[in-house]
Amino acid sequence: MIVTVTLNPALDLTYTVDALVPHGTHRVSAVAERPGGKGLNVAGVLAQLGEPVVATGLLGGSTGARISDLLAGHGITAAFVPIAGETRRTVAVADGDDATGFWEPGPLVSAHEWTAFLDRFRALVGAGDVVALSGSLPPGVPADGYATLIRLAADAGAQTVLDTSGEALRHGLAARPDLAKPNAAELAELFPAEPAEPAEPAEPRAAGVAGAAGAAGASAAAAAGVLACGARAVVVSRGPLGLLASDAGGVWEAAPPERLAGNPTGAGDACVAALARGLRDRTPWPELLADAVALSAAAVAAPVAGSVDLDTYHRLLRALPPRT
Amino acid sequence: MIVTVTLNPALDLTYTVDALVPHGTHRVSAVAERPGGKGLNVAGVLAQLGEPVVATGLLGGSTGARISDLLAGHGITAAFVPIAGETRRTVAVADGDDATGFWEPGPLVSAHEWTAFLDRFRALVGAGDVVALSGSLPPGVPADGYATLIRLAADAGAQTVLDTSGEALRHGLAARPDLAKPNAAELAELFPAEPAEPAEPAEPRAAGVAGAAGAAGASAAAAAGVLACGARAVVVSRGPLGLLASDAGGVWEAAPPERLAGNPTGAGDACVAALARGLRDRTPWPELLADAVALSAAAVAAPVAGSVDLDTYHRLLRALPPRT
Repeated sequence: MIVTVTLNPALDLTYTVDALVPHGTHRVSAVAERPGGKGLNVAGVLAQLGEPVVATGLLGGSTGARISDLLAGHGITAAFVPIAGETRRTVAVADGDDATGFWEPGPLVSAHEWTAFLDRFRALVGAGDVVALSGSLPPGVPADGYATLIRLAADAGAQTVLDTSGEALRHGLAARPDLAKPNAAELAELFPAEPAEPAEPAEPRAAGVAGAAGAAGASAAAAAGVLACGARAVVVSRGPLGLLASDAGGVWEAAPPERLAGNPTGAGDACVAALARGLRDRTPWPELLADAVALSAAAVAAPVAGSVDLDTYHRLLRALPPRT
Repeated sequence: MIVTVTLNPALDLTYTVDALVPHGTHRVSAVAERPGGKGLNVAGVLAQLGEPVVATGLLGGSTGARISDLLAGHGITAAFVPIAGETRRTVAVADGDDATGFWEPGPLVSAHEWTAFLDRFRALVGAGDVVALSGSLPPGVPADGYATLIRLAADAGAQTVLDTSGEALRHGLAARPDLAKPNAAELAELFPAEPAEPAEPAEPRAAGVAGAAGAAGASAAAAAGVLACGARAVVVSRGPLGLLASDAGGVWEAAPPERLAGNPTGAGDACVAALARGLRDRTPWPELLADAVALSAAAVAAPVAGSVDLDTYHRLLRALPPRT
């Protein structure tokens, strides 16, 4: 079973207006509501693929209740822990040209609520499960919150995929997740200067490498830095350049065979969905990266985050023979 | 007892941002939530004054549930009828200079839900009550919805105050509300050209009139037009120019003794709160208009709609001796 963790979910609202007029009053012609937050995007993609998935995390208030209702409509099993605070909203105002975003701050989580979540997590996660840990930590959750969850999952015999940034990523890596999925910006934040050469540099396996010395050189070095921080494997998402994976056994790359126009929000979450499924199924790196590239691109082709365009996914999978 | 009717309530959200950047992403530093819609503003002012008030109308979904929670926190008795649709939100983005507003459309109300509301209204309203009918009608409620409620209230021995616009106002007036409170813009919409002289022009009572032949001339003629449409009395709100009242017995005016800076949203609702209380207590026009002017101005001095600045209210009441 795959378990997605969303500690700071959101109700994502999209308002359609004719044109954005600062200091004007706008009658919104259409309102779209969806469960938001990176972990819920991962769960949405897995549910769309027909994979069993349980979404857990923290939800509060009437906004949290609305998210629960929407998840039920998407066929996602929800196992959230209630909190006293109101779950946040995000509002995106789409005017035909582009969108203007407003992000509410997350609610404050009490120490008692965090303890209740840890209890729920222990009860939920078992041997053979894969846990995807995605997104920011809300105020009140300790900076090493993901590290604690990674250790609990390992104790239970489950694997973990970590997709976060900043301090939460730094602390999480030290707990040795099975896979970390930073993007280029998150890597740059983690290693503001060029990362030091890791103590045990991963040795590229020639068969799996394409151009590791070229454009991928910097990413490969940063990926090695992530391994040195504690991750057992790392996949760096690089937008249209595709994915670079690294573990103790080598480095692999895969790139989309074509450039897709669309909405890149949620592409990283679709990538995590593919990686979590691949970890569960012990899929070899070449097949796994091809799948993750195709699913990420299919998310770009879908209009909203948390879903993929299945036609694009299957078309790209056929065009992306795994490099073996 | 005063009963406020809000058929198209809203959850009013105010987002504080540093500056509004079109097509940018904004971290909202503060979120304020309040029950919105004109009828709920009237109820909020009455509750703040310590007057018994029951708020009824239509509420749906998790947004409706949130409004119920907020009303309980404001000490307002709520007697809403549930609907299947989601109650709307409004978002105001305040950037220090001014606010940018986004108004969601109201939910569709089914014929069955409207019938359920009429049953609830019949059960709720009794002899001696005053019913304030405020704001727009949501989709699905017939254009003569307020007219139906005015007739039901009259049958029960209750009085009515109508504060709406457009077709809902036109239909409502024909049902002979005890008082209508249009503002200048609503009057201009009701009478696109100069209104015809009513068949029985109201005769100004000299003692109560100040400058009826001056700036108030047009308003007095329009007020007479409202009476000709069916209202038993009318109060026209004219912003800083104050109020003009008219009934079969004459015309009265009152204006604020000073110009107040602040937020004019909700001033008309505070006026309706004063008028509803005055109808209940059979307060004579001069005292009633002085009270309504002071309470409207006190709403301008309060930061958000649905509340008044009590110090301003009492100070203006002392400066506004009723003209007898």
